[in-house]
Amino acid sequence: MSIRIGIAGYGNLGKGVEIAVKEAPDMELAAVFTRRDPSSVKILSENVPVLPADEAGSWADKIDVMIVCGGSATDLPVQTPHYASMFNVIDSFDTHARIPEHFANVDEAAKKAGKVAVISCGWDPGMFSLARVYGSAILPDGNDYTFWGKGVSQGHSDALRRVKGVKNAKQYTIPVESALEAVRSGSQPELTTRQKHTRECFVVLEDGADPAAVEKEIVEMPNYFSDYDTTVHFISEEELIRDHSGMAHGGFVFRSGRTGVNKEHSHVIEYSLKLDSNPEFTTSVLVAFARAAYRMQSEGGCGCKTVLDIPPAYLSPLSGEELRAHML
Amino acid sequence: MSIRIGIAGYGNLGKGVEIAVKEAPDMELAAVFTRRDPSSVKILSENVPVLPADEAGSWADKIDVMIVCGGSATDLPVQTPHYASMFNVIDSFDTHARIPEHFANVDEAAKKAGKVAVISCGWDPGMFSLARVYGSAILPDGNDYTFWGKGVSQGHSDALRRVKGVKNAKQYTIPVESALEAVRSGSQPELTTRQKHTRECFVVLEDGADPAAVEKEIVEMPNYFSDYDTTVHFISEEELIRDHSGMAHGGFVFRSGRTGVNKEHSHVIEYSLKLDSNPEFTTSVLVAFARAAYRMQSEGGCGCKTVLDIPPAYLSPLSGEELRAHML
Repeated sequence: MSIRIGIAGYGNLGKGVEIAVKEAPDMELAAVFTRRDPSSVKILSENVPVLPADEAGSWADKIDVMIVCGGSATDLPVQTPHYASMFNVIDSFDTHARIPEHFANVDEAAKKAGKVAVISCGWDPGMFSLARVYGSAILPDGNDYTFWGKGVSQGHSDALRRVKGVKNAKQYTIPVESALEAVRSGSQPELTTRQKHTRECFVVLEDGADPAAVEKEIVEMPNYFSDYDTTVHFISEEELIRDHSGMAHGGFVFRSGRTGVNKEHSHVIEYSLKLDSNPEFTTSVLVAFARAAYRMQSEGGCGCKTVLDIPPAYLSPLSGEELRAHML
Repeated sequence: MSIRIGIAGYGNLGKGVEIAVKEAPDMELAAVFTRRDPSSVKILSENVPVLPADEAGSWADKIDVMIVCGGSATDLPVQTPHYASMFNVIDSFDTHARIPEHFANVDEAAKKAGKVAVISCGWDPGMFSLARVYGSAILPDGNDYTFWGKGVSQGHSDALRRVKGVKNAKQYTIPVESALEAVRSGSQPELTTRQKHTRECFVVLEDGADPAAVEKEIVEMPNYFSDYDTTVHFISEEELIRDHSGMAHGGFVFRSGRTGVNKEHSHVIEYSLKLDSNPEFTTSVLVAFARAAYRMQSEGGCGCKTVLDIPPAYLSPLSGEELRAHML
């Protein structure tokens, strides 16, 4: 029997989940839930109902895992505990500082319901967290380095759009090539914020705005830009839409450490991602971990988990025997 | 209380385990067991006994995990089930084709004894297996690529030494840079054996041997060299020892796959290792998984596991709370 997947929220992530479920040999999409008027939401799949979010409760025995596709700021802190009281759930909560609090809330709801919940799944947090934990456990005498990009940072693009005189904008985070090479060499450099990433901004001005004033406000903005080498390009709205609507992203996690009687041996572990579509890769990760959530609950597990708590074999549609024979 | 580690077999691997245990904040080395005369085995640690292998049985309640440091060809198939009947164990069994059989034997012994055994741990099999399983679960519509090197292949060096007229030799496996770049591009190339790796041989001839005949026999050797572009260098024994005694190694695992309504998005996951010391990195992995074996058995687990069956959090000395707060 297929694993029956529900999608809560149909934006970029929800659509990505729908596409990823089609690729999974052991899954089917059961229903999509939305807070919008369902008749206004057009999905890719035929014969799959789109339903009001508040009808989800009546699907408790028809959905094995609900993939919660809301935003981390205000949606997921409410939605994930809510759905975890009825379903196995998985989300991509990515506000690193609030993970402990979110974990506690979801854990309580999931344990009460006897369900498994997986939070903070995707690539960072997610696959990058795995790379950090494996790397630091294997090479305890060493350093982690995480680089992001090249890709659009939503938070920094939002910050640009709040600047007076800015009509629209996109911000790319770009790892500094010489910093990557220094880390790859195994020398374990100490790198400042400025040495690791640059920030490139593409800005559409409001009519009559002063470019010099806008640029100054951007490059001096604390937290977001003042600690970085930031470049600002002024372009037209047409150019922004034509050239900067892509959702490519990626990044690098390194663990560099030393071993040996006299620490004479250096080792470098590098994990990197080059992604044409940030949301579609994120949802591909979510769907693989949804399989794990279903299996863990089928075996009697419950409560909140992260990617760190899940045996890798649970992500694969292959059996343990097949994995040992062909993938180990 | 510290996790008490035993080492069975004190060669390159055993010594690497000893070094790695010193770095672990939560472990101590309890004893080393050897099939040689214990008085002839000099270890790095003071106040740790070196004992005959057949006395291991009397240490069943003084060792939490026995790390079995034998060879895959003849040692581990016998030793790992033997020690698993008394201890939690871990080994680096790397004969891929015989893993299912080894798993079954170790599983039976470990289950009978209520112990946890982890087999085939290291970097390949081991960390590379994890990269393959995570990658293929996340991007089901795609291809895996594993490259090894640059590093010495023991099996190929042994094959060189069996050639008539060869006194001593080392063989390096080298990934082809253009093949790495083709895979990194996301184009999912089909690569032949010859296109992926080259083989470089450093050979010391016996007195009077014919270099042309030796070279011909090497490059035409089926299975080992005939499918590769192989270069042969004749050098002196002094040069071999001076320039080719290092134990550096490494490699790359890629998963490249496509997503999207029309498969319009390409993604590349790359996991790579650059290691100054192959045995010391392998033993660093073994020691991290020894921690996991101990924890799983403490929680009531038993039987044979591989790296694929182990939640990543179990490798870290940090608690779940610490990992979620700082590493996720």
